[in-house]
Amino acid sequence: MREPGSHTSYLFSEIAARVAAFSRENPGVKLLRLGIGDVTRSIGKTVIAALMRASAEMGEEATFRGYAPSGGYDFLREAVRNRYYPELDADGVFISEGSKRDAADFQALFGRDAVVAVADPVYPVYADASRLAERKVLFMPCRTEDGYQPAPPETHVDLIYLCSPNNPTSAVLSRDTLERFVAYARRERAVLFFDTAYRDYVTDADAPRSIYAIDGARAVACECGSFSKGAGFTGLRCAWLAVPKETGLREKWARRQATVFNGVAYPVQRAAEAALTAAGVEEWRENVSYYLENARLLSNALGLGGQVNAPYLWARCPEGLSGWAWFDRLLREEGVVCTPGEGFGACGKGHVRFSAFGKRDEIEQAARALKRAMGGRTGG
Amino acid sequence: MREPGSHTSYLFSEIAARVAAFSRENPGVKLLRLGIGDVTRSIGKTVIAALMRASAEMGEEATFRGYAPSGGYDFLREAVRNRYYPELDADGVFISEGSKRDAADFQALFGRDAVVAVADPVYPVYADASRLAERKVLFMPCRTEDGYQPAPPETHVDLIYLCSPNNPTSAVLSRDTLERFVAYARRERAVLFFDTAYRDYVTDADAPRSIYAIDGARAVACECGSFSKGAGFTGLRCAWLAVPKETGLREKWARRQATVFNGVAYPVQRAAEAALTAAGVEEWRENVSYYLENARLLSNALGLGGQVNAPYLWARCPEGLSGWAWFDRLLREEGVVCTPGEGFGACGKGHVRFSAFGKRDEIEQAARALKRAMGGRTGG
Repeated sequence: MREPGSHTSYLFSEIAARVAAFSRENPGVKLLRLGIGDVTRSIGKTVIAALMRASAEMGEEATFRGYAPSGGYDFLREAVRNRYYPELDADGVFISEGSKRDAADFQALFGRDAVVAVADPVYPVYADASRLAERKVLFMPCRTEDGYQPAPPETHVDLIYLCSPNNPTSAVLSRDTLERFVAYARRERAVLFFDTAYRDYVTDADAPRSIYAIDGARAVACECGSFSKGAGFTGLRCAWLAVPKETGLREKWARRQATVFNGVAYPVQRAAEAALTAAGVEEWRENVSYYLENARLLSNALGLGGQVNAPYLWARCPEGLSGWAWFDRLLREEGVVCTPGEGFGACGKGHVRFSAFGKRDEIEQAARALKRAMGGRTGG
Repeated sequence: MREPGSHTSYLFSEIAARVAAFSRENPGVKLLRLGIGDVTRSIGKTVIAALMRASAEMGEEATFRGYAPSGGYDFLREAVRNRYYPELDADGVFISEGSKRDAADFQALFGRDAVVAVADPVYPVYADASRLAERKVLFMPCRTEDGYQPAPPETHVDLIYLCSPNNPTSAVLSRDTLERFVAYARRERAVLFFDTAYRDYVTDADAPRSIYAIDGARAVACECGSFSKGAGFTGLRCAWLAVPKETGLREKWARRQATVFNGVAYPVQRAAEAALTAAGVEEWRENVSYYLENARLLSNALGLGGQVNAPYLWARCPEGLSGWAWFDRLLREEGVVCTPGEGFGACGKGHVRFSAFGKRDEIEQAARALKRAMGGRTGG
């Protein structure tokens, strides 16, 4: 078993080391960084105005606020509920500083011997957090030929992490897939942790954007969502976790959060509230449209075609190359930085991930470079 | 064994319930709330200006920042190091969203069967977090006759939490006490987690403000500190944890933080940086002076005398009353809300805690009320 956390840190530190070595040897080459999934557009005016207003309030005796409620201010819990979970009561929405944290902290709801199932390939935090908790992790392979749809485990597990659209494969989990998982969870008394960090990127009208679109999911599923990838909060930190009372987990989660957490900064909660107003949602939508157009440019360059439902492109390496080998070649020949698929799990081998979160001019340069690199091949 | 987290939630929810019932029955009575340890002064101009400036930066393409480094921006790590830990390298300072979180997360560095020692009475998070991790907790009694100085355990433990000045007893751990704990930790290969949330309130010139004032501590101790109780960040969230490389824990902590945490909000880190400039430190000092003067007023009213080294007053209940009985009487007869000592551990019985974080006029009213309630007795 790997050391806790080594998965993530190995991946991104190895990338950083290879990029640094390349830049030392080739100081003149401008890099096109499509490695990290971090947004590049500044935060919208509506959100910044609210952030500034609330920041000023903290400097006045009459409006200063100390500790926030650990589950979030009602104004924000209500705003998230109204937009995403009209079927839940507002107490079912917990505000946090990030979905990565929620995904890791969620482990605390389970006993020592709980078994966890995680898709492969997937963003590393689910498996890393399970390993930190010294838990057995079972991987659910997602293969190209199955449209990257995982199947529920054949044995009993206690907790299943799902992410849709999935990072890195960009696959949206189908209604059929989700129904199988909900049925499994109900049968096995397992809990689903459903990560919707990229839900706004789903363009397929029929695809479920929430686990609660599936009958019976409220009894077995918690769902996290984030202000990061739409409203641009990666540097402000705000997210939520929906915990329906039907799961029977709400009181335990509330108690756990109250024990370890003193709430998200008040100005950030006001900024998040603003992101859910009509004007804020319009700014959010503009960000998503921009990154989706980036994704379409990259998709066309890679010959992937089809509908884009995520801010990531997942491409098979040409000529049977490994992810690391293509990473090295793209860096050397085109100055393009991507993420080798192996970093997301064993089933990621022979693929790489490109992030569409860059600035348009860089994405256009990268698209031209990738078209050259593909030389007419398709990378699907 | 209590349910994880029940300690804290029972205490403060029981207080809230009793206060709510009293207010329903006595709608005309103005309450003097000395229960919760939350600051009431607004944040200083220097800090707010930095917070606003950095917030504005997030709205401009040229200055927008996405994910922060998980351990904090170098500008803030350096500023904390320069002020508090000139003897450490800057990589030894990790920025986080709160010391409560750091205290709980620190558990992740230990194996499943690790044993934890915690002072009694003390702020509940250390024991609660240990119970959440399903660990055995050994309590170190702190008694009036020993000046509330705990002694190291007589058996082996792996992790010891210490807080100085201690919440709720307000006792500063003496050099002699700390030397015993450092010697114990070195002998037993245990780790000390030293919480300095209230360090700025120490007025006794000879008392150690940091565990690193003790020879040999760097090999066995990590130390947390906070912007909350001095710079007034309870609603902004920023703290730090010092992890000297001599502890051998730094790499593991860095990896752990990178796995679960994406850093503190950029504007909050800039605000914290400003709190450590000369102008910010002056605002910080003014806050501390104000709350210390509050504490002196309460100390005199309670007949405690002596030097005030903390923003809390710890008083023995008159007439052999239990903490809850005196809580009820003070609420009913004087409208004063305090915290029963039993909530901080078995050794807290027969005492209550008063917070000095209120506004001056409320503190003055409370002081008059407490003088009446004491009727000439001393509460030390």
